Formats: sequence, structure tokens, C-alpha cells
Amino acid sequence: MPITDPSLPVLDISASSVELTRQLCDIESVSGNERGIADAIEAALAGLTHLQVTRDGDALVARTSLGRDRRVAIAGHIDTVPVNANLPVREEDGFLIGRGTADMKGGVAVALKLAVELTDPVVDVTWIFYDHEEVESDLNGLGRLARNHPDLLEADFAILGEPTKALIEGGCNGTARAEIRLRGVRAHSARSWVGHNAIHDAAPVLAILAAYRPAEIEVDGLVYREGLNAVGIAGGVAGNVIPDEAVVTMNYRFAPSRSGEDAVAHLREVFAGYEVVITDLAEGARPGLDAPVAQSFLAAVGGVPSPKYGWTDVARFSALGIPAVNYGPGDPLKAHADDERVPMAEILECERGLRAWLSAR
Amino acid sequence: MPITDPSLPVLDISASSVELTRQLCDIESVSGNERGIADAIEAALAGLTHLQVTRDGDALVARTSLGRDRRVAIAGHIDTVPVNANLPVREEDGFLIGRGTADMKGGVAVALKLAVELTDPVVDVTWIFYDHEEVESDLNGLGRLARNHPDLLEADFAILGEPTKALIEGGCNGTARAEIRLRGVRAHSARSWVGHNAIHDAAPVLAILAAYRPAEIEVDGLVYREGLNAVGIAGGVAGNVIPDEAVVTMNYRFAPSRSGEDAVAHLREVFAGYEVVITDLAEGARPGLDAPVAQSFLAAVGGVPSPKYGWTDVARFSALGIPAVNYGPGDPLKAHADDERVPMAEILECERGLRAWLSAR
Repeated sequence: MPITDPSLPVLDISASSVELTRQLCDIESVSGNERGIADAIEAALAGLTHLQVTRDGDALVARTSLGRDRRVAIAGHIDTVPVNANLPVREEDGFLIGRGTADMKGGVAVALKLAVELTDPVVDVTWIFYDHEEVESDLNGLGRLARNHPDLLEADFAILGEPTKALIEGGCNGTARAEIRLRGVRAHSARSWVGHNAIHDAAPVLAILAAYRPAEIEVDGLVYREGLNAVGIAGGVAGNVIPDEAVVTMNYRFAPSRSGEDAVAHLREVFAGYEVVITDLAEGARPGLDAPVAQSFLAAVGGVPSPKYGWTDVARFSALGIPAVNYGPGDPLKAHADDERVPMAEILECERGLRAWLSAR
Repeated sequence: MPITDPSLPVLDISASSVELTRQLCDIESVSGNERGIADAIEAALAGLTHLQVTRDGDALVARTSLGRDRRVAIAGHIDTVPVNANLPVREEDGFLIGRGTADMKGGVAVALKLAVELTDPVVDVTWIFYDHEEVESDLNGLGRLARNHPDLLEADFAILGEPTKALIEGGCNGTARAEIRLRGVRAHSARSWVGHNAIHDAAPVLAILAAYRPAEIEVDGLVYREGLNAVGIAGGVAGNVIPDEAVVTMNYRFAPSRSGEDAVAHLREVFAGYEVVITDLAEGARPGLDAPVAQSFLAAVGGVPSPKYGWTDVARFSALGIPAVNYGPGDPLKAHADDERVPMAEILECERGLRAWLSAR
């Protein structure tokens, strides 16, 4: 169903992936407002006989069905965090600068260009463009696709185009958030012995955190560095009151070899004797770089793969039993920054790497 | 200058001190709105030949000048914390219940009744009724009197009618508030080793507080119990950020034998190596119960005096070199409470005690 409304933005798919990145960024698509960009991508994919396109909300899945013995999913989210006077995109010193350039329309541009141009890839490819990655997890478009169309996501290997400086970063750490709430007895601070100070009771909890030495755990050949940190502490009623409550909030980043259950058990062991309340839990993703299809990807792209520390949607593939890596243009430290930017050379490098791998015979 | 406006509330000074307490409470006088009650008290004192009355803002000073060899100041504040649907006063089970009953219009009623009735006390008396006690220290009416009319406050001994359950509580502890600010380096919690966690650095500060054993210090025969407590802690940026700052706020209650300077030096010694920022400091008050005038008061009132732990305006007298005690009807734990109340018997007991002492020949 081609889009014919002339007021809709049109993508020039014959332009370079750098130019296509700029076009995609200039279609503002802050989470919740992905309709226009999804329409434009759908229009670019329409009428291509080598792809079967399915739309679910503002997510698009375009699949080849060439009967290859391996299928690879290549995915990217099309939404961004809010614009902050950083659109339209401008070009400077080899960078495209503006909202979405690094996170992650560079990766989307590469995928879209290759989806259109590679009519005969060596593996079957499932191209995925999805919405709502930058907001609450239950809105995530990839998660919705997994619920509504699990068959469409089947694959032997997945590549997520999140920014990695055009290097392969395998899997990702899991993340858990937990709270320990200390309880005391309120009293006037002039008669403190009548009460019990909950903030003082946080001392051993912080001491455990300060003394904690995070593990480094090798998974499928990559070494994942963990972390356990207080990310918040709060307590106090007034300047003359012994506080009856203090709350330590912590974040545990755990290697993908640990299940969520293992991670929670570890936290409970570290804080034995305390009530540890888990407020958020997302398992990591194994890199799966030992699979033959991953090895061929590594060989084509080159470079030494490293572990991904931050949690990304590769974990959603991992949860479906699909090993997944991150590979995309841009520095992750520039994601969400007001001066968000992507080196144009990295966009071209990612296009080259994926094209070489998918075309190699 | 008698008040003749018939719309003004009129106090019936011939009524009992219990009834007078009720009348005073029912003239709403939340801090900043003391004019009406000050007018009513001024009217009650007007035309009495044994008293010289001075008004400063909404504070009143009424002095006898009988040439006695000792002068005693008897003081009370006439403002209250905000009313919370607890006026007018009601009576139940031997209590007057409502805003101001405990803090401290019971004490004010006793003082006002005795000021009017005791035309020939055995010591000269300076009766003081003042405004703005329940708000910022720099607005305090007693402090203003000390600045504007230091001569009017001269005395050998002072009694403040704050609630003490009609028992003598001598002097008061001093109070200091201090902050220790821990500084770190912000980072994404997925790469925590790039940053430095300021909350973790609060662990030894809290450990010092938790291990601290407050002193008990005898001053003029009373034992003052000190206290050093965290009253607040705050830190944290977001659930995925290593925090770059944490602040511990503490409150030190120190015996009246320590100067403010001593107290600060003690804090700096306890937290050696940390930057301790003092945000508030008020010295305590020695009870001065060894002076002969105090001894005669003790003998007339009876009971065993105890130390006052909370800071009160007795410290303002102490700063003027005047030993001071607290003595008034009501439970200090009911001050500011929504169910604030005073036992009617304690009002009468305080009236009896003061009357007996001031009349004894």
C-alpha cells in the first residue's frame, strides 16, 4: 500500500546512507510520534518484490524469503528522546549533528538502504524498524512485535544498530534495581534516645556497597564487568527530628551468564539480613559469538568484539533464544546529549561491513 | 493608654487562670498576627499603678519598681503555630484542648493573672509577653527586646513559662546543625568504574554517627544528655547514574557548659578529615540553680528540678548573663500537636507555685 499523500516526507533511498541519516533525523520522531517516519519507511519499502512487509502500529518488519539455511534479524528503533533545539541536522567537521544522529538513525539509515538494495543476500534477513524504545519498557515496539508476531522475529542471530562506534559489542549486562528501607522510630532530636535513627542504620548498607568488588565474568569469550552501586539515598523529616525512615536505592549490573533469579539471589546474599525489594529487573544477553553465523559476521566486519555493558534491546532477542550483538555508528556517550552527533565515516563503515557480509559468496 | 475600641477582645482578669487560658487561646495569634492578643494584654495591664508598662511592637514589658534587692523576669510568648481546626478551645476530662493551650498560653495566663494581682511581690518582677517565638530566630520578640531595650530585661533570674508539666527544668542544651557534603564523579551506572560514587563515601560518616556515644554532662547540679544525629541524607541523580554528590545533615545537641565554639570544635574533631559546614548554631543555657534566688524558687515550688533538653528562649536570658529555668503547665510533647492540650490542674499548680514564692515573707 504505497503512500500517495504528497504532504508526507519522502525518503530518497538512492542517496548515500549519510544523506539518508540526515533525512530520517529531520523527520522528528520523539517516542509516541513515530507515525510520520514509519509511514516514510513503509513507503520506501513498498513494492519491493524481495521483501514481505508487515506493519504493527508504527513498527515495520520486512523479510526476505529466499530459503537460506540461516536467518538474521537486523533491527533499529526509529524513535528519539525529545528534541532540544537540535534539529534540523547540521554537518560539521565530518559529523552529522542533531537529535537522533547517534541514537540511532545512522543505524536505521544503513539498515533501510541495505534492505532496499540487497535483493539477494547470502542469509535470509528480517529487517525490523520499531517504535517506543526510549520510553517505558512495556511500550517498547520490539517487545510488542514479540508478543503479537513471535513468528516474524524468528532468527538464528540478531544485530541491533545501536551506537557502538562501528565496532561489534556482544550481548549486554543485565540490570536490577533494588531498595533497602531502614526503619527507625521518630523523636525530637533534643531527646534522641527516645527514638531510633533510621539514617544511622544505613551505615552498614553503604559500607557493604563501598567495599563491594564487582566481578568480571567471561561469557562466550567476552569479559563482562559488573557493577553494584547506590544510585539514590533519602531520609530525614526535619532539622529537629530523628528520622524514622531511610531508603537506599541501588543498581546492580550483572553479567549475561546470570539469570535474573541468580542476580536477585546474589543481591539477597550480599545484603543478608536486610529486606531487599526488587523494583526493576531485566536480564542481559549472551553475545553468542561462537555460533558460525556470528563468526562469519565478525570476519566480514573485522576488529575485536567487546562486551556491551549497558542494557539494550539485544536482551529481548536473547530472551527469545537468539544471540545478538550491537553494531552501529556513533558514540553511545553522545546518545541523548544535546550535542548528539555521529561521524559520517562510521555510517559508511557500518554500511560497508554489513553489505560485505550479506553479499559475500 | 487603655484600649476603648469595643470590638476588641477583652480579658476577664478576675476569672481563674484556667478560664484566662481559654480566653487567651480563643484570641487567635499565629505568629505575625499577635496584635489583637497584645492589645488585650495591654488593656488588662493598663492603669495598674504597681506596673510600668512598655510596648515594643507586639511585645509588652510590665515592671514593678519596689526597690527589692532582687529582680526576676517572668516571660512567655503570646504567639502560636498555625491553627489546624483546633480552636475554639474545648474542655474534656480535665484538659483544655486546642491550639496554644500547652504552648504556651497556660503559662501566659498564670503570668498575666499574677502580674495584675501581685501588687507587692517579695522580689521586683519584670513580666514579659512577647511575639514571634514560633518562627525564624531573627524575628523573635524577646531577641528584639534585648536589642531595643536591654535595660528592661535586666534581672538576677528568669523563668520562662514554656510547658514542663509544672516542674522546674533548668537551662537548656545548645543546638548546632551541620552538613557534610561528599563529592564524586558522575557516570552511567552501566560503566560505574568511570565515575566515583559519592553516596558510598557517606558510609564512614554514617558509621561515625552510628558509633557516637553522646556525653552526659553535669552543669550546676543537673545532668545534660547530649545527642548527635543525622537528621537528613540526600543523594542520587537517576536510577542509572553514579551520583556525584551526597549530603548528610546532622544536629548536635550540646550541654550548656559548652560554648558554641566548643561545640563546633567538637564536631570538627569527630569528623576529622571532612569539611563540616555549620548551618545553624545556638548556645544552650546554664540552669543557674545554685543562686540564692533560684534556691528560694525551688523551695517554694517543690519537686526535683531536671535539665531541659530542647532549646528554648531561656538561652536568650543566659546570653544576657541571667540564669533561667523553664516552668509552665502542659506536656512539651503536646506542643504543636493537633490535639494540643493542657491539664487544667497544672495551670493552677503553676499559679500556686509562683504565687507562693512571690508572696512568701
